[in-house]
Amino acid sequence: MRKPVVSPWLPMQDRARGRADKRDAVLRTAAKLFNEKGFHATSLDEVAEALHVTKPTLYYYAKNKDEILFGCVHAGLDLVRAGIAEAASSGGTALDKLQACMRAYADVVTQDFGMCVIRVGEDPLPEEGRRELRQLKAQIDLEFRRLIELGIAEGSLAPCNAKLAAFTLAGAISWIGRWYQPEGELTPQDIAEQCIAVLLNGIVRRAEPEASKPARKRKAAA
Amino acid sequence: MRKPVVSPWLPMQDRARGRADKRDAVLRTAAKLFNEKGFHATSLDEVAEALHVTKPTLYYYAKNKDEILFGCVHAGLDLVRAGIAEAASSGGTALDKLQACMRAYADVVTQDFGMCVIRVGEDPLPEEGRRELRQLKAQIDLEFRRLIELGIAEGSLAPCNAKLAAFTLAGAISWIGRWYQPEGELTPQDIAEQCIAVLLNGIVRRAEPEASKPARKRKAAA
Repeated sequence: MRKPVVSPWLPMQDRARGRADKRDAVLRTAAKLFNEKGFHATSLDEVAEALHVTKPTLYYYAKNKDEILFGCVHAGLDLVRAGIAEAASSGGTALDKLQACMRAYADVVTQDFGMCVIRVGEDPLPEEGRRELRQLKAQIDLEFRRLIELGIAEGSLAPCNAKLAAFTLAGAISWIGRWYQPEGELTPQDIAEQCIAVLLNGIVRRAEPEASKPARKRKAAA
Repeated sequence: MRKPVVSPWLPMQDRARGRADKRDAVLRTAAKLFNEKGFHATSLDEVAEALHVTKPTLYYYAKNKDEILFGCVHAGLDLVRAGIAEAASSGGTALDKLQACMRAYADVVTQDFGMCVIRVGEDPLPEEGRRELRQLKAQIDLEFRRLIELGIAEGSLAPCNAKLAAFTLAGAISWIGRWYQPEGELTPQDIAEQCIAVLLNGIVRRAEPEASKPARKRKAAA
């Protein structure tokens, strides 16, 4: 009987997975460096060095630095969109869903890819990539706006300009990605909860004075 | 009688003012371009061209592109600090002062230098300049925090983590500088008022159910 030949190559399926894992490691390492040092100040040599590979190896996973940034920002936006889709399809009121979306968004902006969306973003990219990523971002803004409109319609939120309220909410949460330091004293959860509490508190509809609840929007007869 | 010689040079005082005006024009033109195209994508040739001068002329006002960015961000932060100092020294409660500071900040981030603080910021600069600008920024954060703490102490604001509330307020307003388009449909004032209303609404202290007065100053409905 002849010995079976053991292939030195991995089965196709494992190879595809290995490649995806490696691409993810390239993007994630680059995102970390972009977030710390800035996009333009980061060289592909540094990305390669951090991964213990040579620069030519990187080109197997991305054609150039722009394509790496595109991949990082896209990955960040995909995480936000997945989180929002899950939150929006969960049960509960529009206010519950809005809160869940805000949590999902805050969660992502304190991680590498989400932070890269905020700190670097699509601005350094050529027109085509920039346009594609901006469309994804616009969808996220629209989803916040839609939930705010639903919240107003269901009566859980006070009437407001939903577009501006959406920008205010998303802006405050986005800013977390600008200043958050993983080695800081506050956990991402603490930060998210307190920031979201202030923001939701700012848009919820309050009970009328007659209802023996805290009054707002009406001045008691002096 | 001999004719007096008319000097072809301006008096020293006028020359100093002329130089300051020209430096301001260099910084402002650069800020506009940085905000539109990004810092790294903007060349000094473009700045010079927009000003109808040659690049060597720019070097009379700034040593290099880094120094121009430093000047732009510094100018933006100076505007914020001046606005906050004025707001903080005005009369009224801590809540009034906080609102005035938020308005001053929102006003600045929709203008060239303020937008440059938000869109470009100090990140591309060498360590020394970056540190100096970050200290100025930290003072602004501290002033917001101080007013929130005073507001809690005077009873106009609900107890909260003042540091995180300050980041939330400043973050949401900062974000305006990221998405604001001068040719858009909303005026900076409309945007600021609505954003600030949501944010203040999120942190004010509300009347207890027992109390007959609203926690926040509002105009009588009738």
